[in-house]
Amino acid sequence: MTAHPVQQKTHTLTFETHGPGFTDITREVSAWLGAEGAGDGLLSVFIAHTSASLTIQENADPDVLRDLADALDSLAPRDHPYRHSTEGSDDMPAHIKSMVTSTSLSIPVRQGALALGTWQGLYLVEHRDAPHRRRVVLTFTGALG
Amino acid sequence: MTAHPVQQKTHTLTFETHGPGFTDITREVSAWLGAEGAGDGLLSVFIAHTSASLTIQENADPDVLRDLADALDSLAPRDHPYRHSTEGSDDMPAHIKSMVTSTSLSIPVRQGALALGTWQGLYLVEHRDAPHRRRVVLTFTGALG
Amino acid sequence: MTAHPVQQKTHTLTFETHGPGFTDITREVSAWLGAEGAGDGLLSVFIAHTSASLTIQENADPDVLRDLADALDSLAPRDHPYRHSTEGSDDMPAHIKSMVTSTSLSIPVRQGALALGTWQGLYLVEHRDAPHRRRVVLTFTGALG
Repeated sequence: MTAHPVQQKTHTLTFETHGPGFTDITREVSAWLGAEGAGDGLLSVFIAHTSASLTIQENADPDVLRDLADALDSLAPRDHPYRHSTEGSDDMPAHIKSMVTSTSLSIPVRQGALALGTWQGLYLVEHRDAPHRRRVVLTFTGALG
Repeated sequence: MTAHPVQQKTHTLTFETHGPGFTDITREVSAWLGAEGAGDGLLSVFIAHTSASLTIQENADPDVLRDLADALDSLAPRDHPYRHSTEGSDDMPAHIKSMVTSTSLSIPVRQGALALGTWQGLYLVEHRDAPHRRRVVLTFTGALG
Repeated sequence: MTAHPVQQKTHTLTFETHGPGFTDITREVSAWLGAEGAGDGLLSVFIAHTSASLTIQENADPDVLRDLADALDSLAPRDHPYRHSTEGSDDMPAHIKSMVTSTSLSIPVRQGALALGTWQGLYLVEHRDAPHRRRVVLTFTGALG
């Protein structure tokens, strides 16, 4: 493959969450790449929070996401005598879950499309009980139309 | 250090795995950088799967890798009543193990060589029992030949 | 936002650690961006070690960091019959803790400043008992001066 010149564009997406769980944001992220005329390159995805995080996971069977949520609950149990408890019993587990998943991810882009594997989806993971507005910052580095 | 102009190149490597474990892919990745005439820059490494993942870990004592595999087994036990079980008892633990390790990594490149620490190796981690063909996508952003 | 041309600069920061814990390195990293005349872009942060790691976490209540350290101790207990034990009882847990946190992170940069969320700080996490000198490699890709 020949080398291509590089430009950069950035954008912030906002998502409303409604309690703990996985939100597939692949479509919104892909739409922005398309609208900007992205070609080949690399997309950095960054979440500006410490009690919500990112992961790339299977997008076929919704049970996978439920099992992943259970696994995070096991790794960061709620009924533990945390020092930091003033923000509610869901807050400290949320920080732990964020720490063991991802705050930033980099995904290859081919001809303007996320070069994800067949079964991969990009997820925002909410770890708090209350609804939140979450900011996801996109930075595309690569060839632009 | 003076700023340098930036170009981009990408490539997909394929690895055959034979059951759970760590495969050191540092040499194959480094060879591609060398062949492309990479100079200074940054290499993004992305794995296009949700039941295999990436990590940078100690490359000196093979026992470290065995202990890491055990630790992943403890964090994602096989004998658990997962909802998602149709693909085998190794599948849901594989997704959990992928989630707590890395799908993407970015590694500095100096004069065409991965700027890894003395004891760091780049590993593809297979989490499934059966042999798989795994795709790893490289994106180099930096100075080229 | 219009696309901007892209250049690249890199730098290595060194930090002295004094036992397990979280060191906020946001200020040192930000200072380098400012000194280099960074504009908009993306900063890659890479730690060249396998028994210390990176994370972005809450910077408001120090108790959060203590609870995170406890959580890592639970995920990687010291009193376990690890195969790899010649480097001390803190070494293998350190590798496990590194694996489940981050070796590399990418953070958006706006007008030369890290575009972190309100409560986000960038931390170097030391997992070994003895003092260590840790190298963190920065790569800025974006608009310069």
